Amino acid sequence: MRYSLLGGGKRVRPVLCLAACEIVGGRERQAVPAATALEMIHTMSLIHDDLPCMDNDDLRRGQPTSHRVFGEPLAVLAGDALLALAFGRLADPTSYPADDPVPPARVVRAVGELSRCIGAEGLVAGQVVDMESTGLGSPVGLDRLEFIHLHKTAVLLEAAVVIGAIIGGGSDDQIERLRRYARCVGLLFQVVDDILDVTKSSQDLGKTAGKDLASDKTTYPKLMGLEKSREFAEELLKDAKDQLSEFDPIKAAPLLHLADYIAHRQK
Amino acid sequence: MRYSLLGGGKRVRPVLCLAACEIVGGRERQAVPAATALEMIHTMSLIHDDLPCMDNDDLRRGQPTSHRVFGEPLAVLAGDALLALAFGRLADPTSYPADDPVPPARVVRAVGELSRCIGAEGLVAGQVVDMESTGLGSPVGLDRLEFIHLHKTAVLLEAAVVIGAIIGGGSDDQIERLRRYARCVGLLFQVVDDILDVTKSSQDLGKTAGKDLASDKTTYPKLMGLEKSREFAEELLKDAKDQLSEFDPIKAAPLLHLADYIAHRQK
Repeated sequence: MRYSLLGGGKRVRPVLCLAACEIVGGRERQAVPAATALEMIHTMSLIHDDLPCMDNDDLRRGQPTSHRVFGEPLAVLAGDALLALAFGRLADPTSYPADDPVPPARVVRAVGELSRCIGAEGLVAGQVVDMESTGLGSPVGLDRLEFIHLHKTAVLLEAAVVIGAIIGGGSDDQIERLRRYARCVGLLFQVVDDILDVTKSSQDLGKTAGKDLASDKTTYPKLMGLEKSREFAEELLKDAKDQLSEFDPIKAAPLLHLADYIAHRQK
Repeated sequence: MRYSLLGGGKRVRPVLCLAACEIVGGRERQAVPAATALEMIHTMSLIHDDLPCMDNDDLRRGQPTSHRVFGEPLAVLAGDALLALAFGRLADPTSYPADDPVPPARVVRAVGELSRCIGAEGLVAGQVVDMESTGLGSPVGLDRLEFIHLHKTAVLLEAAVVIGAIIGGGSDDQIERLRRYARCVGLLFQVVDDILDVTKSSQDLGKTAGKDLASDKTTYPKLMGLEKSREFAEELLKDAKDQLSEFDPIKAAPLLHLADYIAHRQK
């Protein structure tokens, strides 16, 4: 559990969670248990997705995957225990600031959101459809591609901002705006990833370029062409930013910059 | 998920949860979401324990195991989704009676208990130590045997009564008594199982008798002899019943009868 959780990673979900708590007027440290829980869920999903019976990956973040180090049984169990521990962190009163506690009703709502983003309407749905769509020999349609990205990637970003905003005491309207922001950012990330794969050299990217093109992996440029993919990315960026327009601009700055960074990154 | 959850089983944990809610003065229907959650956790632990990389079991309750029917990837994911769904049920306000809701603080505490019973201090710990102790060629010691039974079996019975009592509004003292009751009942169940395996015929049991003796599985009769095992079972039964002595006898009757039934069953 420590090996995978503490083995690096960009901590995008925790950062989103903390930023969402602040943007609605909460204090960052109130959202630390939730931010930790989200990274635990992300990590457990990577451990299980990497298993030999799933995507069978030997490397993750440049390190051997959990089952390569500890064996398959312990990798399955480490994922299970991280999943359970995530809910435990959210529910543990001692993980919240003693002088600035979070009302239990907010914690209960956060538990519900976290549950939904994992299960048969969340990460698990994304992984099932992704596995069913691999090796078909033909690209999947745009609807299915979007379903996979929304469930494999966007859903946990969405949970991160929604849970952060719930913990911070955001209104239903604020929570829904942040939910839409995260869905746009999740898709944006994938579209830009697909564009970079065809427009950049391996040297620029620091990883093999053009490998999506060579494999039978479905990408946005393959489905809609490069120009339309770029237009789609711009639309998503604008849509994401629009969701932040009614928040305090100073508090919204981190989420605004994150969207810009994702849209304009060169690798 | 439906195949494994609705495929039979004695529903011992849900029954314990509902009974514990009532014994402390709660209403049975307040504990239905928690009872459901406990059965989901029990089911997910069976699905993952049965996986080829774990105990590699083909049959469960007379039916093919999840991975035999749906394949290994979907079995892993069905377990993950059931784990998440269990917390979702506990946290879903619409799963509680509208005219008799449960305070959020109790729900948060129940989430914490459920988390603890699954992870690295609960079911996962039991499964890890059990796997490490299998195929050693020599029996494990009494301490380790008790550790395995307490974590693989008793811990979920414990969670069932503790969560039922939390939801029902029990006092800390009542909750601790019920916790001890469940630990005794969990061990009692295993001791009696081991005794029956050496004292009854296959016809009596409805399954192969003497198979523990033939395998290298560690049992109480092997470690302490038949007579001492029977004495231990009587002690556990008395201890379990003692924990119930300060509750209303009418409300305590179901838990009392359950302990008697487990101690004196003939198969």
